[in-house]
Amino acid sequence: MQINFKEIRKKLLSGDFSNLLSFGENKRNIHPTEVANMFVSLPFEVALNAFASLPERKQINVFPYLEIPLQHYLAKKLPKESASHILNELTSDDRMLFFSALKGVALATYTDFLNKENKAAVHSLLGYPDKSIARLINTDFATIEPGQTIAEAIVHLRNNHKDSEAANVIYVVDKNGKLVDDIPVRRFVLNDPAKKIEEILDGMCVNLKMTDSKEDAVAKFKEYDRVVLPVTNAEHLLLGVLTVDDVLDMEEQRATKDIQQFGGLESLDYPYVNTSFFGLIKKRAGWLIILFLSEMLTATAMGYFDAEISKAVVLALFVPLIISSGGNSGSQAATLIIRAMALKELTIKDWWFVMRREVLSGLTLGIILGSIGFVRIVVWEELHWYEYGEHWLLLATTIFFSLIGIITWGTLSGSMVPMVLKSCKLDPATSSAPFVATLVDVTGLIIYFTIAASILKGTLL
Amino acid sequence: MQINFKEIRKKLLSGDFSNLLSFGENKRNIHPTEVANMFVSLPFEVALNAFASLPERKQINVFPYLEIPLQHYLAKKLPKESASHILNELTSDDRMLFFSALKGVALATYTDFLNKENKAAVHSLLGYPDKSIARLINTDFATIEPGQTIAEAIVHLRNNHKDSEAANVIYVVDKNGKLVDDIPVRRFVLNDPAKKIEEILDGMCVNLKMTDSKEDAVAKFKEYDRVVLPVTNAEHLLLGVLTVDDVLDMEEQRATKDIQQFGGLESLDYPYVNTSFFGLIKKRAGWLIILFLSEMLTATAMGYFDAEISKAVVLALFVPLIISSGGNSGSQAATLIIRAMALKELTIKDWWFVMRREVLSGLTLGIILGSIGFVRIVVWEELHWYEYGEHWLLLATTIFFSLIGIITWGTLSGSMVPMVLKSCKLDPATSSAPFVATLVDVTGLIIYFTIAASILKGTLL
Repeated sequence: MQINFKEIRKKLLSGDFSNLLSFGENKRNIHPTEVANMFVSLPFEVALNAFASLPERKQINVFPYLEIPLQHYLAKKLPKESASHILNELTSDDRMLFFSALKGVALATYTDFLNKENKAAVHSLLGYPDKSIARLINTDFATIEPGQTIAEAIVHLRNNHKDSEAANVIYVVDKNGKLVDDIPVRRFVLNDPAKKIEEILDGMCVNLKMTDSKEDAVAKFKEYDRVVLPVTNAEHLLLGVLTVDDVLDMEEQRATKDIQQFGGLESLDYPYVNTSFFGLIKKRAGWLIILFLSEMLTATAMGYFDAEISKAVVLALFVPLIISSGGNSGSQAATLIIRAMALKELTIKDWWFVMRREVLSGLTLGIILGSIGFVRIVVWEELHWYEYGEHWLLLATTIFFSLIGIITWGTLSGSMVPMVLKSCKLDPATSSAPFVATLVDVTGLIIYFTIAASILKGTLL
Repeated sequence: MQINFKEIRKKLLSGDFSNLLSFGENKRNIHPTEVANMFVSLPFEVALNAFASLPERKQINVFPYLEIPLQHYLAKKLPKESASHILNELTSDDRMLFFSALKGVALATYTDFLNKENKAAVHSLLGYPDKSIARLINTDFATIEPGQTIAEAIVHLRNNHKDSEAANVIYVVDKNGKLVDDIPVRRFVLNDPAKKIEEILDGMCVNLKMTDSKEDAVAKFKEYDRVVLPVTNAEHLLLGVLTVDDVLDMEEQRATKDIQQFGGLESLDYPYVNTSFFGLIKKRAGWLIILFLSEMLTATAMGYFDAEISKAVVLALFVPLIISSGGNSGSQAATLIIRAMALKELTIKDWWFVMRREVLSGLTLGIILGSIGFVRIVVWEELHWYEYGEHWLLLATTIFFSLIGIITWGTLSGSMVPMVLKSCKLDPATSSAPFVATLVDVTGLIIYFTIAASILKGTLL
């Protein structure tokens, strides 16, 4: 089943499209996604010629698996009637994926390629917010009425529906088009054809609303273990269906977005390799500058303590250690809470539970690290690896208490900042780990030098 | 469709299980997952009584939706024949989820609850590695032979298979049990029943191997847009099927694991709220201690430069700003590369492309931040907000070049460390952002003080 993509690409680059569909094992026909894979990283002009050499039916099957920028290029460069035919024949969810990525003139141009019915559908779906599932629904669903027998329903389906994924689940609607229930098509096969449809319903239909967010949809698919869910409007009118392959894509995109925001950058619109150099800089520079500007407060904070530092240079040596410990513990806490909120394991109502728990965690972790820090200074001093001066024991005590204070504070901020942002209706993932770390750095310095001042007053300071 | 869980929980806590199945809208039967939701966060003893009050069939349907710890509690506390009946009646993938979480004596006890056939199946599947998909497969699949007509196949299915998700796709096998192709059951309905099975095959069957990893399986489901895939051994013998609901769960678990490792902690085995306080400390303390120990090198590095710091305390003021900028740019780069590798957009073969790109990105970002840092010092000095002394322009120049050096270095390490780990067959997600940040902190200090020494020699130093 292995396909030698290297070999194929070489052939395609040399202009030989003769046997594009006969690669692979003899036993198995080639799948559209495999044809699409052959086009990845080909120059667009070559991909265009290879695509144009495919039989019409294959073009329609392969098109949805191509990357969006190549889809747009093909729509532009193929003969208009050919592009128009492909766009009209796509399933409605794949068609919407194509049009959702377009703007302005291009959008107007390509909607003109569509027939009346498809054009109206695209226009009405583009009106829904980008975050809603409305743009992802498939409108080619199969419906029957509850009074029919299974045999009648089968004849109806055979005459009205083509063999596509949308026919895996059949929808029972009443005379007004309102959703009654869904039936997996297997039940037509496993039951006596003389039975009425209403006898084989299980009355456990779950549905989505057009305005539901992608997050809501992912959660519902997981909760009910479904492969397709009907989508209705507020009047319970069946408008389309959402299939699980789109949900898998949404889940992957959401995870990527979350991970990139955790990493302290704006989430990319395209994969890393397809993002231009300046696009990449733009996504990274924004947050980096914000973090840099707020980290400047550390220079200001340190400035307030310059007298202490010049009296006891040894205090400066531990600054990176102290603040990075606060930052690391803060990013741990933030990560845990943000992910738990994203998976709806926690809501902002749980803040008191989280706060108590995180303060205790912070204290425990602080005592552990504080003790290690204390021992570090004692050992280095005793073995004469570094001379901390006559007040080394007081210095070690300062480090001990500073670490407890800063790690507790880091853990507390890391857990509470995402909850505060969430309660302000902001996306907690944007309060990403480095943001918390910056907050903790600045306040951590103040904690450190304040503790130092009170312990070392009269001796080192 | 809203269910008032608060109300229900109150009833359950008061011992009233009378109408557990009649909540919800009258129009719709209650789904097993909703019954399971009612049990969430109930004391286990109450959940036990509520569960025991359900009719037998409902118990079997609800059981797989319960959380694993509650499943184990029920298996222990229910009458043996009842627990045994439930475990035997579960679908094979749900049964494996139950047994995969068990160890030692408990495992032996509960496998004794199973009938011969199920026991043998559980034992043979437990032999496969934890990472493979073998433990997730459903072995209750439906098979037919290619020579049958559709009508014959339908009769065969009706007599041999129950109405479960496993019957959404039917598998065509030859006389030796080898997989020939898969047919969505809808094709039985949409085609003339007199046709032979072999006439309606599309020859595009894709399959998984028992030893495939969960990552491979997720990738294949996405690539081919399938809802269920057959799983075979090396001889192409059909052994089971993997359904997309398990894939969605795997995808969520993988994202959670990646996110938690990015956040610098070991990934949790259970949700945050279900992890015990000490379990949580254990998962966090390990990495925090490793990071702390390596961050100790910063104190050592700073120690080498204590003479410079005491001569020019002003240099210490910028230490947190400098090293955090390196850390932030490093974690951005690490995030981008780790995620792109997880999604297989990048492989280690692309290291040279990534390296060139990231060095250029680092230089560009370094020049941007360096300029801001330069302006910061000039403005503060000119407005007399802080007195940096007579050599303030040299200091500003030091900051400018240090930021360029450190951000370039941070970006380069952030992108290369994951690739190096990957090429050593280690999981790049464990080279999580804070780890890169620690690396960058230590080397960043050396870069900073070296640049400072060469620019400020003879003036400040």
